[in-house]
Amino acid sequence: MPQGSTIRKIAITPVAFHDMPLLNSVGIHEPFALRSIIEIVTDDSYGLGESYGDSAHLAAPSLEGISVYDTNMIYKMCQNSLEGDDSTDGDGMAGMVTTASVTDKVFSPFEVACLDIQGKIAGIPVSDILGGRVRSNVQYSAYLFYKWAGHPGQPDDEYGEALDSAGIVRQAEKMINRYGFKAIKLKGGVFPPAQEVEAIKSLHTAFPGIPLRLDPNAAWTVETSKWVASQLEGIVEYLEDPAPEIEGMAAVAKEASMPLATNMAVVAFSHLPPSVAQDAVQVILSDHHFWGGLRKSQTLAAICSIWKMRLSMHSNSHLGISLAAMTHLAAATPNLDYDCDTHWPWKRDEEDVIIEGALKWKDGGVAVPTVPGLGVELDREKLARLHQQYLECGMTKRDDTTYMRKFRPEFSPHIPRW
Amino acid sequence: MPQGSTIRKIAITPVAFHDMPLLNSVGIHEPFALRSIIEIVTDDSYGLGESYGDSAHLAAPSLEGISVYDTNMIYKMCQNSLEGDDSTDGDGMAGMVTTASVTDKVFSPFEVACLDIQGKIAGIPVSDILGGRVRSNVQYSAYLFYKWAGHPGQPDDEYGEALDSAGIVRQAEKMINRYGFKAIKLKGGVFPPAQEVEAIKSLHTAFPGIPLRLDPNAAWTVETSKWVASQLEGIVEYLEDPAPEIEGMAAVAKEASMPLATNMAVVAFSHLPPSVAQDAVQVILSDHHFWGGLRKSQTLAAICSIWKMRLSMHSNSHLGISLAAMTHLAAATPNLDYDCDTHWPWKRDEEDVIIEGALKWKDGGVAVPTVPGLGVELDREKLARLHQQYLECGMTKRDDTTYMRKFRPEFSPHIPRW
Repeated sequence: MPQGSTIRKIAITPVAFHDMPLLNSVGIHEPFALRSIIEIVTDDSYGLGESYGDSAHLAAPSLEGISVYDTNMIYKMCQNSLEGDDSTDGDGMAGMVTTASVTDKVFSPFEVACLDIQGKIAGIPVSDILGGRVRSNVQYSAYLFYKWAGHPGQPDDEYGEALDSAGIVRQAEKMINRYGFKAIKLKGGVFPPAQEVEAIKSLHTAFPGIPLRLDPNAAWTVETSKWVASQLEGIVEYLEDPAPEIEGMAAVAKEASMPLATNMAVVAFSHLPPSVAQDAVQVILSDHHFWGGLRKSQTLAAICSIWKMRLSMHSNSHLGISLAAMTHLAAATPNLDYDCDTHWPWKRDEEDVIIEGALKWKDGGVAVPTVPGLGVELDREKLARLHQQYLECGMTKRDDTTYMRKFRPEFSPHIPRW
Repeated sequence: MPQGSTIRKIAITPVAFHDMPLLNSVGIHEPFALRSIIEIVTDDSYGLGESYGDSAHLAAPSLEGISVYDTNMIYKMCQNSLEGDDSTDGDGMAGMVTTASVTDKVFSPFEVACLDIQGKIAGIPVSDILGGRVRSNVQYSAYLFYKWAGHPGQPDDEYGEALDSAGIVRQAEKMINRYGFKAIKLKGGVFPPAQEVEAIKSLHTAFPGIPLRLDPNAAWTVETSKWVASQLEGIVEYLEDPAPEIEGMAAVAKEASMPLATNMAVVAFSHLPPSVAQDAVQVILSDHHFWGGLRKSQTLAAICSIWKMRLSMHSNSHLGISLAAMTHLAAATPNLDYDCDTHWPWKRDEEDVIIEGALKWKDGGVAVPTVPGLGVELDREKLARLHQQYLECGMTKRDDTTYMRKFRPEFSPHIPRW
């Protein structure tokens, strides 16, 4: 083993950062989003990973003594560390994705941290470790949410209320003005489908030519989904998770004129065979956090290319380490067909765990870092601050539904709702 | 770009080495086998690749100035270098595989050479670049051929004649005594199926408990294949390419009790969707030479795991660089289910292009090199000798059929023959 590649220590630090009251099919975002920051420490370097902050993700497998190149062994250790644990919980997605491979989720941030160190050792960015960047700026989309003006009992946040089409268009304008996004995604599943169809049409009028997507998180039945598809023909570039499950998506796909995308029906490699057999989805939103890291996400990309599915990228609330990892992955993926999702605009600028200025937004995208590794370094003072916030916020698990019910006791997260 | 990773020069050297008169469905091996040796030279290092020796593989794409990490760009340059060239020829497999992706074949040795250099830069073996070895000795199988005693007009070779079951069993004994192989593959498609079934049964009697395989290179009709399958039930671990094409294999698979393997019906990523849809094959013999290098072979391995196909490894006549690459790939592939094929025993010990002693055979396998890169270095004197042999032998393309017809003018390579 060459000098500097042996893992000496693992540190996992849970952090909390402010989030806005964003609505979705299972409730509303709580005042804080949780993440875990993973550090892999070698003799003379360290690598970073970021994952869900739910308590299930805070136990570290014993990786001391293993080489950062031996990801096969690290995967095995993650598998071993989960033996007897058959939970599918703790995914940090508030129940919206429940069957992703737990091993792949646990493994992911460690793999990212290993690739960070591999890049540092070779003196090249992670995108080069992954085969070389095919684009120097990774484009993201404006990720719109219906939302309350502010968390109850708190002042309005900077984006304010968006509970109708006019509010959504205003939100899009504000976000696009700031970031320059060239595609728009609306998180739906909040209001009756006709109202969300109207919002998309309003966006289409306000931003002619801009690719649009609608994602109700499987809040609709197959019949409702078909109706929405007929309403949005020629208007959206894809419809994301209209109906639940592979079978539901397959039934909708038979009649929809646009591709169907998913990050709910197909979230693990084992879901691919039945989905492919039924042509259930035409676009997969990859997410290295639950597809087992960057290399496995490249495998997913290859599979999409082979089976002629298209590729987009999913996001959860995240910080700069994940943004860097997503950006390197996207940069090295030739068949990425759409602008990636990101929750970035919803977090406060000053809240992160990385040194400021490492990631530069430009023209709706992030410039791919060209320095060794992920290109982001830990700001330990900021990390300590967000960890303190984690300790003080009292949250240990994302739960959009319970938070919603504090204010709307009658709320049901049952899907399909319409 | 870090020091030492920029490609400065490409050298491709065609070589010829002695081969024995091995029979197959399209003819007989010629007195020499051809390979091309690829060197990628950087400022302070070099990497090695090995590929087919047919003249179609001797043109180098312009890779000067590209980083050895930028395999995305190198792939693109290979694609560009082939523009307008829609040949599916020059595969070095005498017409037995004709539809593999030409770009993947051209790219493969350059990718291997890049990984060799990447390993040298990081100070780790290629198996670690690929994710870490899960085995320290890669097992190969005894690859038996019906054969003539020697090339016409030349003395008998060390293995002598094998034209019946007794000869095949003798050949197996000799080869297993020497290498310690623990699985046996017989190249069939040479004699009527009943005779080859008898040979397998003789091997089963002579080597009880040793896994057996029979590969007639698609020389049989679907009906004949079904008959052979019924005869060899419980005797072979898989039947390799009994009938031609995905449809033929699918028809046989419906009735065969054993898995069907292929390196003819499914030889490119584009063949996977139709094959999977029909459950045509249950085992894929990967081959990094036509599946686009080591990383793409890992993608194939992942696909096999996901779609619950099994994985084995194919071989052509090859030298030490390919053996090293195959060994590193196999070492880093968790779901390799069978002992790999190799033509190694059929070449003369003293004929190679690498420094002696780098690859150590032990207990039917090769010890995975643990030094940086592929672990094989060029012996320039040997290379010069085999290149001279290439220039003198007069061959520029493998052609088993024409050579066979010199002695058996009535020979037809038409398949299926029986």
